[in-house]
This record gives sequence, structure tokens and C-alpha cells, in this order.
Amino acid sequence: MSDLTPPVIILDKSQMAENIGAVARVMANFGLTELRLVSPRDGWPQDRAWATASGADWVLEGVKVFDSVAEAVADLNTVFSTTARPRETRMPVRTPRESARILYDDTASGLRTGILFGGERAGLETTDIALTAGITTIPIDPKHHSLNLAQAVAINAYEWRTLILDAPPPRFRESDPPASNELLVGMYEHLETELEAGGFFYPPEKKRSMSQNLRVMLGRSAFSEQEVATFRGVIHALAKGRGRLLAKMAAAKKADEQADDGA
Amino acid sequence: MSDLTPPVIILDKSQMAENIGAVARVMANFGLTELRLVSPRDGWPQDRAWATASGADWVLEGVKVFDSVAEAVADLNTVFSTTARPRETRMPVRTPRESARILYDDTASGLRTGILFGGERAGLETTDIALTAGITTIPIDPKHHSLNLAQAVAINAYEWRTLILDAPPPRFRESDPPASNELLVGMYEHLETELEAGGFFYPPEKKRSMSQNLRVMLGRSAFSEQEVATFRGVIHALAKGRGRLLAKMAAAKKADEQADDGA
Repeated sequence: MSDLTPPVIILDKSQMAENIGAVARVMANFGLTELRLVSPRDGWPQDRAWATASGADWVLEGVKVFDSVAEAVADLNTVFSTTARPRETRMPVRTPRESARILYDDTASGLRTGILFGGERAGLETTDIALTAGITTIPIDPKHHSLNLAQAVAINAYEWRTLILDAPPPRFRESDPPASNELLVGMYEHLETELEAGGFFYPPEKKRSMSQNLRVMLGRSAFSEQEVATFRGVIHALAKGRGRLLAKMAAAKKADEQADDGA
Repeated sequence: MSDLTPPVIILDKSQMAENIGAVARVMANFGLTELRLVSPRDGWPQDRAWATASGADWVLEGVKVFDSVAEAVADLNTVFSTTARPRETRMPVRTPRESARILYDDTASGLRTGILFGGERAGLETTDIALTAGITTIPIDPKHHSLNLAQAVAINAYEWRTLILDAPPPRFRESDPPASNELLVGMYEHLETELEAGGFFYPPEKKRSMSQNLRVMLGRSAFSEQEVATFRGVIHALAKGRGRLLAKMAAAKKADEQADDGA
């Protein structure tokens, strides 16, 4: 994972302090730290922001407030404007994924980057969009395009984080590697022996293909050593009654015969 | 753009009706329509959900309520559990992007899919995760991993929509699709009944965790309908001798007793 400086989030004329707090929360979720506000409607700071930030206080405490978008992005090299729908401007329009890639490349090249969001109701003004390197549009269903501000930040922040995370998620816990083939085959043979005794392989000439199918379907689970032991316990528990009862019946039969002999 | 049926969103034990409304809103943003609730804390419907849905009323009006995760996913073939961090279970762990790709391919293959989310505080229980095809983990910064429920839904819904807007050629499943959860649970219950009879669950207070481990280890195989039938045949073949012999012994005992009576 990289230690690149994440993009700055800039909120233009945000109205609800609750939304600013929710934005801080998702920024923290995805490792973003720097939040700038342009002319927040109710001024700054606002207690209600802390109430919805769910502990992402360091983001709120670092907030800087500006009077215009131009001032807020002055020190940044690459900024994208986020809009719900493409606007009238002849600006490049990109998906959050495409934009994140550019922000990543520029950051890695030593540039300072940011993502600009409009207010809840009015969105961004064209003059402000024009200060940026292009438009990022989240692929919203046109039937319901009112996306919550914090959600819009979340999608972009998520794309940034997905990009900088190199390590793919582990498929399985490292402490539980799959069992050796030897152990697996032992388990299969145990199962097949008991199934044979239970009359499962019928007709007998199908035993080979039936066993193979069982090995394939169980093999997909990639049992660990512990799980092989568990599954052998299952086979044993299911089949043992039969063995014990057979022994009992044999003993009973023998006793009967001896009784008969004695009679 | 495709007209595939989007995944069902299932919320287990959600607490705040406001969050259910916010979930409905982001579902509508990204073209998802079907929402299922498992035991919502405050009952259903709740006016507060409509207040935060921002007009996504059709999602809320279509909500179905269930008593258990098992019932809520019974008709679905491929469901992923969303968790903040990988759990103790040995289930595959995927990113939202990887999971969306599988949901997309499975939907294109005619299967019904879903994404399961835990309650705001407690998250998902391992027994419920065990009913699903794996875990989806959003790449959250470990320093601040408290992700809002609607944000978690948004990230997954966004990945789905991004995928279907690109409309890559679906990779149709060449093999048989996974059985419905209903069939799987029936198979697990059959196995557990026979194991109970075989004295496998010892000590008895461990039955729950032992059953859960079995469901996890077998669940990873994603048995097809045919394979469920095969495995039920395996359980039957292993256990039936016991039943038959028990019947024989009972009959023999009865005959003995009658003989004794007659004497």
C-alpha cells in the first residue's frame, strides 16, 4: 500500500452541517484526511458536524474555510468537479474510476490533487467547474439522481483507496491452509468404504464415476487439516451405529445359537 | 445497458429506520429495486424511513420482511455477506468489485442474487454468513472502520451499476449453478439430524458451533441441485443401516418379549 497524499475534498456552499460530518466520516473510512469548505451556509465550526462524523474528529479539526472555490483550489494542481449530470461546459467527463486513476498518477508525479463537490441543492456553478481539470460523473440511474453528498464523496474516496491498495484480499485465512492431498485421499477412501458398506454404489459398475463426482464436489471446499478430521468424524458418526448394531446383532445371534445348542 | 435483474439487498436486524430509508435512496440511485428486511428492530413500516428515502418510495413500498436470514435468502442462488473485516470463518473474501463481477455473471446465467448486510452495531452472525457464498469486504482504512450502512450498500450498488453500464460480455457458468439456499439448508438439517442420532454433537452445548462449522466447510463447495441430491444420498447411505438395524433390533426385541409373555 502506498503512502501517497490523498486528494483534498472541497465542499462548495454546503448547507447541512450533518452532511459535512458524514463526509468527514467517509473520508476517514477511506483514508482521506484533508477537507476544505467554501462558504458553508451556517458558518464553521458546527457541533452538528461532530455528531455525524462518528469519531472522525481529526478530519473536522483540520478543516480550512475559504470564501471562493478559486481560493480553495489555488494550491492544487489537478482537481475534478463532481456533478450529478454532465453540464453545458465542454469539459472532459469521466467516471470516478477514470478520475481516480488520473489523480493517482498525478499524485505519484508529485502533484497536489483534489475533488470538488457542489452544495446539496444547487450543485456547482459553471465558473467553478471551469477552474478544474474536468468533470467526474457518478453513474446514477436517471430515474433517481438525487445522490446524497456523503455518498458522492464515498464513491470517489472508495475508488481512490481501491486504487492505492496493492495487496489483494486474502482468499482464506492464512492460518488454515488446505490439507495435503494425502489426507484428503484418506478421507475420500474412508467415505467410499462406508458408502460401499451402505450399498450406495449402485449399480456397482458406476462406483468409479460416483466416487469421482463425490471427490470433485467435496474437493471444491478445499478442506483444511482440521476440517478433514471433522469430516471423518461426520462419516464415523453417521456410519458407526451400523457397525455397533451389527456387532450387537451378531453377538445376539451367537447367543441365540448357543442357547439353541444348549436346549 | 443490460436489463438484468439487480441483486436483492437484505438488511439483517437493522436498527434505525432512517438508515433503511437511506439504503432505499442509494439503491434507487444505482438502479436496485428489491429490499428485504430481517427482523428490523422497530418493526415495519416506519415513517422515518420514508423521510430519509428522498423519494425512493417504490423501494420502500416493495419491502418484504422476514424472521430469519435463512428465509430471506431461501430463493436466492448467490448471496454475499458484507462485513467490515474478514471473520473467523474460512469463507472466500472478495472486494466489492470482485463480488459484483460474480453477481453479474450469475445473474446473466439466470440465477437470483443478493447482498446481505448486518445490523449497524452487531454486524452479521457467523451462522448467517455460513448461508452465503462468501464475504465481501469494503477496503476500509483500519484506523476508522465504522462505515455507515447506507454507504456500504452504496459502494456495492455502485459496483453493480458500473459493471452493467460497461456491459462486458457475461461469462456464463459452464457448470451447474449453485442450488437455492432452501435446498442447501434442507441438506444441512438432514445431515445434522442424522449426526445427532449418531451422537456426533458432543458435548451437546457445542452443537451450534459444530453445525456452523460444517455448514461453512460444505458451503464453500457451492453444491449444485444435483450435488445436493447426491450428498443427501451419501447421508442416507451412511445412516440408513443404523435405522434399518434399529428397526430389526426393535422387532427382534418385541418378538422376544412376546415369546417371554407367551412362556
